[in-house]
Amino acid sequence: MKSYRKELWFNVPGRRGFINITPQVEECLRESGIREGLVLVNAMHITASVFINDDERGLHADYEEWLEGLAPHAPISQYQHNRTGEDNADAHMKRQVMGREVVVAITNGRLDFGTWEQIFYGEFDGRRRKGVLVKIIGE
Amino acid sequence: MKSYRKELWFNVPGRRGFINITPQVEECLRESGIREGLVLVNAMHITASVFINDDERGLHADYEEWLEGLAPHAPISQYQHNRTGEDNADAHMKRQVMGREVVVAITNGRLDFGTWEQIFYGEFDGRRRKGVLVKIIGE
Amino acid sequence: MKSYRKELWFNVPGRRGFINITPQVEECLRESGIREGLVLVNAMHITASVFINDDERGLHADYEEWLEGLAPHAPISQYQHNRTGEDNADAHMKRQVMGREVVVAITNGRLDFGTWEQIFYGEFDGRRRKGVLVKIIGE
Repeated sequence: MKSYRKELWFNVPGRRGFINITPQVEECLRESGIREGLVLVNAMHITASVFINDDERGLHADYEEWLEGLAPHAPISQYQHNRTGEDNADAHMKRQVMGREVVVAITNGRLDFGTWEQIFYGEFDGRRRKGVLVKIIGE
Repeated sequence: MKSYRKELWFNVPGRRGFINITPQVEECLRESGIREGLVLVNAMHITASVFINDDERGLHADYEEWLEGLAPHAPISQYQHNRTGEDNADAHMKRQVMGREVVVAITNGRLDFGTWEQIFYGEFDGRRRKGVLVKIIGE
Repeated sequence: MKSYRKELWFNVPGRRGFINITPQVEECLRESGIREGLVLVNAMHITASVFINDDERGLHADYEEWLEGLAPHAPISQYQHNRTGEDNADAHMKRQVMGREVVVAITNGRLDFGTWEQIFYGEFDGRRRKGVLVKIIGE
């Protein structure tokens, strides 16, 4: 069994944003030389997500509005977590809806994806460098 | 390390529906001959889910109503994604709540499940053939 | 490839609660002797979650309130599932929001975590013993 590990780092300038990280994960897979196995891609921070969906700008705007409805940022005083001096309790909730991680099959040295599947980093408390872990195991 | 791959295909006649796919995943496991490892089961489309829960008709009706409350289908004009000619923005949201994939342990050649765990395909934009990927790695 | 399996059991005295199970998962990892691979940690019951987030009491209170808003326990008659004699339909929904499982990378014999990542058992229908499965594969 072979294994491979890499950290990817992102700095989203606003509080929230979505980045298509599929090309970086594909580059990791090439570097790993692994042809059959699984790749785990996870947010290393607990106010961010890694998820798979469509690379469509309108959908991302819809996600932003929908998540804000499910877990509003303001008023920040509505969350006990923010009494610690934070203002990001909503980000901890949005991340649970969108998920921490994805696991993707590797077949014949490629991400084994349906037609529209793309991997996104979802930032809910940005304006600083935050990491994503890529771990690949296989042969 | 051994690996195994199979696509399962489903055509849900309505827009939404849940299908228990545990027997098909068990059949994949038998075909693979793998006794110890992990199985990944994921939706290949981004408006569908694979999740693990109870095979109880009333619960599925509750999920349907609950998800429609969290991310209503209509009016379709409320979503920017639908300006592309689609009417399925809500399905992209419902899928995030229910999840894209499950990873299940394989022990002694069987799905290592709690008493009530069953694997479901969750369709949120049906009326066409859509796929599920089963990838097994182990020994 | 090596594999390791262990069940962890918990009895949350109230209906809902969160338990940090990171130390138990780390103990499993030591027992396994696996240095490179993946660990799957999943709830064996379908009214409970395993998730990764912050070990902060205020945040957990926020999660409790937020989840109750998304999928209220009462009135229990609002859910068809509860006509079977159950009163836990809401728990099946809360578990979908928080997720069934996490997959964590193992690197150099340790859980390959960001600074604040901790693994939690999330109970939504407690007052009885319920299990978590830890499965590790690697070398």
